[in-house]
Amino acid sequence: MTRIPYQELCDVLRKILLKIGFEGERAELCARLFTDSSRDGIYSHGLNRFPRFVEMIKRGLVDIHAKPELRGSFGALERWDGLRGPGNLNAYSSMERAIALCRQSGIGCVALANTNHWMRGGSYGWQAADAGVIGICWTNTMPNLPPWGASEPRLGNNPLVIAVPRGDGHIVVDMAMSQFSYGTLESYRMRGEQLPVPGGFDLKGELTRDPGAIEASARPLPIGYWKGSGLALILDSLAALLSGGNATHQITPDSYEETALSQVFLAFDLPSIDKGGLAAQVTNQIIEYVHDAKASGDQRVRYPGERTLEIRKQNLAEGVPVEAQIWQALQDM
Amino acid sequence: MTRIPYQELCDVLRKILLKIGFEGERAELCARLFTDSSRDGIYSHGLNRFPRFVEMIKRGLVDIHAKPELRGSFGALERWDGLRGPGNLNAYSSMERAIALCRQSGIGCVALANTNHWMRGGSYGWQAADAGVIGICWTNTMPNLPPWGASEPRLGNNPLVIAVPRGDGHIVVDMAMSQFSYGTLESYRMRGEQLPVPGGFDLKGELTRDPGAIEASARPLPIGYWKGSGLALILDSLAALLSGGNATHQITPDSYEETALSQVFLAFDLPSIDKGGLAAQVTNQIIEYVHDAKASGDQRVRYPGERTLEIRKQNLAEGVPVEAQIWQALQDM
Repeated sequence: MTRIPYQELCDVLRKILLKIGFEGERAELCARLFTDSSRDGIYSHGLNRFPRFVEMIKRGLVDIHAKPELRGSFGALERWDGLRGPGNLNAYSSMERAIALCRQSGIGCVALANTNHWMRGGSYGWQAADAGVIGICWTNTMPNLPPWGASEPRLGNNPLVIAVPRGDGHIVVDMAMSQFSYGTLESYRMRGEQLPVPGGFDLKGELTRDPGAIEASARPLPIGYWKGSGLALILDSLAALLSGGNATHQITPDSYEETALSQVFLAFDLPSIDKGGLAAQVTNQIIEYVHDAKASGDQRVRYPGERTLEIRKQNLAEGVPVEAQIWQALQDM
Repeated sequence: MTRIPYQELCDVLRKILLKIGFEGERAELCARLFTDSSRDGIYSHGLNRFPRFVEMIKRGLVDIHAKPELRGSFGALERWDGLRGPGNLNAYSSMERAIALCRQSGIGCVALANTNHWMRGGSYGWQAADAGVIGICWTNTMPNLPPWGASEPRLGNNPLVIAVPRGDGHIVVDMAMSQFSYGTLESYRMRGEQLPVPGGFDLKGELTRDPGAIEASARPLPIGYWKGSGLALILDSLAALLSGGNATHQITPDSYEETALSQVFLAFDLPSIDKGGLAAQVTNQIIEYVHDAKASGDQRVRYPGERTLEIRKQNLAEGVPVEAQIWQALQDM
């Protein structure tokens, strides 16, 4: 593991993207979104994912020139077709559009069909909050999570992102409907550690904290058992119905990767709504109240997004951690 | 326990409400919402809750004549003041208004401050789906759930409802952010049963399936541990910021009950959006796919809302179950 300055990393990715044909501004934004994820500690969907992203482009699953096209306008809600463009650029422009819509109508919604993996979903929450608005977005995925009561994957883990702007650090929730992602299971297994809480079933159908046993059974646990299972199903329904795109059962990994996903982006124009200017005060109070809670262990209670800012600060100061193997792969591209 | 025909129950409640001063149509709707909850198997927020509701009125916490007033209009998003009216009537009229807004703008949002407990949240999801639109709503509550990493309640369990219309039975998720409500813990304890999965911590700080131990510690578990904790916090933030009303830390049980809550109601105009008429087909496919999943136990996998319809059918045919004590209390009112 080596630490590389943020801007250097961003430049390396941008040059690779330009080399494989990205247009200038899109290369810049795409490189930034990948680098930001690693900067914020989401290494699995940052640099570590970049080679796989380039591979998807080479296999023709991602069309680097495609930009979303408007398919239907219903006032504050719009339907767009992602035309299988780069997932992170499609998602970014969809949240931009939702933000523009909310400036007109108090609330804005973009439903996006036929797009690709958005990498770190939290990016579009931070994007909304940086623009001063409340953002909500979610995506469906291929089947990777058994519904509650089933032993085979028939739901996506359908990550959900909610972000609230705040001067001293946004509140950002970024969570899949599975208790642990496959990436997290792998990390625990490689470190030889047990999960902190049960994460799924083993091959005998018993709840287990052994990450390898869950990988073997393909039975990760939805958050809250039946509750996360229901939430995953209905988030998929909303994404498919609002966008007119695929639902999870229609998303089969196309020999290599999932593609043609459906996503929803919502924005709420907080600055217009908050006429009395009380929002900042209330948000700070909510966080203070939770910070002051009696801790059950050694650590103070954190709000969602707090740890991200700590990691971001450290990685900007000391450089962004990159695995040697990934750094070498980037040099060779 | 006795079974009473649906309409008889509804009439009994309506007469009581008229007697304590409700205006005719409001008595009718309020009685129906309570009876519907029991009809659908949510006894804790149906008939069983009615005496407590009347008690809140008598204590002056609920103003039976108050109707929500518009405080701000931002296009497809509106802010209303619930003026501490009956929580179920306020919520119903807010969802009605969100539905009307979505007919104009594709999406509609009503943020409601200063309201009372909405009883069964799912009611307003069924309401939206019965109107053919997608509905989302949530409420905050007084502090009743420790944030992840804390040993005292500083979050609400903030129930979230999402509903998708469907000809053969709507999909409706209605879930609090705690794994089990206090009402459910009490039911298990009274039956002398252990919870099916760990539901919180005991006084020693160990995860437990013993409902009484969780009641004693006041440390129920958020769904998905840190995930439900984050979700509860941010749903509270959104409710307070969008409505301009109280956040959980500002909601102290006013000697007797929580009051002056904040809620959000969203509606999406599916009939306009679904120009090709594909929505019904996709929704049915999503359910078939999950129904056909290999079951891990004896029972077929269910979609959210399926069990509700089964109970509703039985209770309409055989009468709605009412505890003898509650039935007597209603007769005496």
